[in-house]
Amino acid sequence: MVGVRINHHQLARAMKASDIDLLLILLVVNLIKNLGHRYGSVIDAVSVAAKFAVYLTYLEEGKNLRRTGFLHHVEPRRVKEIVGEFEDLVQRGEPLHLLGSIEPSYLIGFSYIWLEKFPMQGDESRLKLFNLTASERLIVEASIAANLPKCLAIREDQMYSLIEELHGKSQDSLPLEKRTVFSDALAEHAKFRLLESGTVQEIKLNPKLSAYILAKTDYSPRDRQARIHTMIQDLTRYFEGMYAWVDEDPEVMRGIETLGVLPEQKDAAFQELDQLVRDWADKYHSEAATQQIALQFLISRHVDVLKI
Amino acid sequence: MVGVRINHHQLARAMKASDIDLLLILLVVNLIKNLGHRYGSVIDAVSVAAKFAVYLTYLEEGKNLRRTGFLHHVEPRRVKEIVGEFEDLVQRGEPLHLLGSIEPSYLIGFSYIWLEKFPMQGDESRLKLFNLTASERLIVEASIAANLPKCLAIREDQMYSLIEELHGKSQDSLPLEKRTVFSDALAEHAKFRLLESGTVQEIKLNPKLSAYILAKTDYSPRDRQARIHTMIQDLTRYFEGMYAWVDEDPEVMRGIETLGVLPEQKDAAFQELDQLVRDWADKYHSEAATQQIALQFLISRHVDVLKI
Repeated sequence: MVGVRINHHQLARAMKASDIDLLLILLVVNLIKNLGHRYGSVIDAVSVAAKFAVYLTYLEEGKNLRRTGFLHHVEPRRVKEIVGEFEDLVQRGEPLHLLGSIEPSYLIGFSYIWLEKFPMQGDESRLKLFNLTASERLIVEASIAANLPKCLAIREDQMYSLIEELHGKSQDSLPLEKRTVFSDALAEHAKFRLLESGTVQEIKLNPKLSAYILAKTDYSPRDRQARIHTMIQDLTRYFEGMYAWVDEDPEVMRGIETLGVLPEQKDAAFQELDQLVRDWADKYHSEAATQQIALQFLISRHVDVLKI
Repeated sequence: MVGVRINHHQLARAMKASDIDLLLILLVVNLIKNLGHRYGSVIDAVSVAAKFAVYLTYLEEGKNLRRTGFLHHVEPRRVKEIVGEFEDLVQRGEPLHLLGSIEPSYLIGFSYIWLEKFPMQGDESRLKLFNLTASERLIVEASIAANLPKCLAIREDQMYSLIEELHGKSQDSLPLEKRTVFSDALAEHAKFRLLESGTVQEIKLNPKLSAYILAKTDYSPRDRQARIHTMIQDLTRYFEGMYAWVDEDPEVMRGIETLGVLPEQKDAAFQELDQLVRDWADKYHSEAATQQIALQFLISRHVDVLKI
């Protein structure tokens, strides 16, 4: 069953995960599986967020180490270390860095560096760097899609060099204690991710030699990246709005409607809702208002499993 | 500046946290600071979620340990351990346990056990367990609010016993490897949380002796608990819907409107939107439809800081 897509929501529910556990699974599984962050870097990021919570309590509790320790069930000595880390960051004006970017940087920049280092000039063969006979070349070229980025096919060791160079660049922007050394394991991980995402394609020339081709100019297409950004911003906004709703903030209204819509009516229903909301916003918008509000709405499949 | 409420969103932004980092901070800080989970238990829960991601990949990749390891940058030996843990869970039908419940159980059940162990019979004094003169008692009682739960004030050691008993009960429902031993540090942590939330009130009788009073029958009020549950379910649904939107699922529609509403028009605007949405759902709902959809909407303050 290779390549099967497992519904993590359903599996987690079948394993009797609670609501809050499901939310954590959704976030973490997507960070790792859809956005491509490494297992270890997600754990590290959450640990920084947890330390940030301790630091916030420390500030709120009048910088009382002991009290902060009690509230979080952390030793005062450990609280002191955590506070030290954050005060250093604040003083040096260094950014607070958890995951940093939505997708791992060594994957995002990959195609640019390839295009820069191994450009294809004029009519030359994409397979120039490989020692092939004319007929071998024709056969291989026939197996490659036509509209690929204009750069040369490379060997595995050249691909690893590109990954290593990108790794080096991404490390430069990190604080010293966050940097990781490059390793064969990291190179293989990146290679698998690139193949898996279809950014890179492998063509086996013989049992010992493969040609690697750049198949896309982005790790994920630009409009998908834009949608992921929108998703993260919407989620953050929704999160904050819902937390305010729990505290009965009068500026917040939350609602949900579930309904069954016939397939032939779906488009009309979606369009009408869009129009209704726009008209409503036009009607109540006033340039004189000092406080802005945001209305977020989302129609999605109603998953009964949520109700188990 | 004790008791100051720090806006974690603003502080994180000022420290140049990225969008994805902000989302992680929002989740983790709220789990720890608002829902009262321990620092360590949040880290543990995320590590289980990350292992679940590895297990899902293993299933999707035809149970190939090596490939799973490459994809996650985890050693095949470690993948094998992780897989073993999950297969054990599945085989024994044990629940997948991360945080388990929205609020820590030893805090939720606290008032029930107090009411059960130290009930106040008829007209007896709440301070019965303390050796006070009649005038001392009058003075102390005058400092207590009138409509408190009907149970006796207790000493610190009695409170610790209650916490220990609850801890024992909550441990019984956990798999063996998740259990933690009770410690003085855990008792102090729980005591601070209970005082901080206003569930328990401390009255210093003399420098060495305090009376502890149960001030609320819930760690968080029942309607707040219900709202927290709703929030978690809404967030989970929204998360899944947005992930489907990123993948351009045609069953998903996402929208946002930002507007300025004058304070005197706010109520009318909120009510009208609520009505519009309900009418829309009534119009398009069909009992014959096989697929249900959910429309979620949320109005909240528009935070410009999101746009930085």
